Amino acid sequence: MNVDLKAFDQLSYGLYLISSGDGEKTAGCVVNTLTQAAVEPVLATVTIHKENETARLIRRTGKFAAVVLAQSAPMELIGLFGFRSSREVDKFDRYPVQTDAGGIPYVCEHVTAVMSFRVWDAMDAETHWVFLGEATEARQLSDAAPMTYAYYHEVKRGLAPPKAPSYRPKD
Amino acid sequence: MNVDLKAFDQLSYGLYLISSGDGEKTAGCVVNTLTQAAVEPVLATVTIHKENETARLIRRTGKFAAVVLAQSAPMELIGLFGFRSSREVDKFDRYPVQTDAGGIPYVCEHVTAVMSFRVWDAMDAETHWVFLGEATEARQLSDAAPMTYAYYHEVKRGLAPPKAPSYRPKD
Repeated sequence: MNVDLKAFDQLSYGLYLISSGDGEKTAGCVVNTLTQAAVEPVLATVTIHKENETARLIRRTGKFAAVVLAQSAPMELIGLFGFRSSREVDKFDRYPVQTDAGGIPYVCEHVTAVMSFRVWDAMDAETHWVFLGEATEARQLSDAAPMTYAYYHEVKRGLAPPKAPSYRPKD
Repeated sequence: MNVDLKAFDQLSYGLYLISSGDGEKTAGCVVNTLTQAAVEPVLATVTIHKENETARLIRRTGKFAAVVLAQSAPMELIGLFGFRSSREVDKFDRYPVQTDAGGIPYVCEHVTAVMSFRVWDAMDAETHWVFLGEATEARQLSDAAPMTYAYYHEVKRGLAPPKAPSYRPKD
């Protein structure tokens, strides 16, 4: 039996920035794994690499925010959140930022929606955490076209960061 | 604080058929929630309504298969898997079907990839189960364009089934 990763490249996703913070520290990263899980209550899952600073802060604070990237999002923004570590750079001092009711910063330009979550549960996926969050706030910010993962690859010629579940060693 | 579901409509997904079986009973449904969670080992999550017969069979058998629908998938196929119950109809006697190594049937036309999973864990999302599965087999079946959830809505004019996390009462 054989698992060909080309099969998994057939899955479709959007592209999102996830952020968390505790008042002192903030962290953020790019994911393609945000998925609505229920509508009453409004729940969503997001899968993040365990070594990611954002995952550590989410586990500590029990909350996170998510924005939906628009097609217009510059590669520099995606690169900052996807290929740099929040331990090394402040990701929230280069682009316009707002703060949600829980005090978490989020990038507010080149995005189409923002959502805030309280963590309900987390599931261990070996290298990654699958967080389950209940939405505490959510609103659409723009009518711009959301960035899909296919658009990021095919039009923007972007790569998967090494900690993405969709990372392919050959990338 | 307010949770506007329009924000969640900004998330991007593909469209998939999930199936399970125990040799006697089979069940299948449409989801938009299949997401790769890790690459070593290859893990994925899928969120399914608890009342769905497929979810019950997955909990009993500990295994499921997934196919990625192609853009060419007819609305009748999606309607059969999305709007009928496996308790009432045999969903695997109307379209060409193959069987994976674990004996689970899957629709093999109008799909671009097939994957089989063994359940590792499950997380309770109130109305839904979030299953975490390890891939036991996976292969690409076609170079056809995968169906995205946006394509299903905008081009095929499809609706969300009532048990989908993305279901909107106004649909």
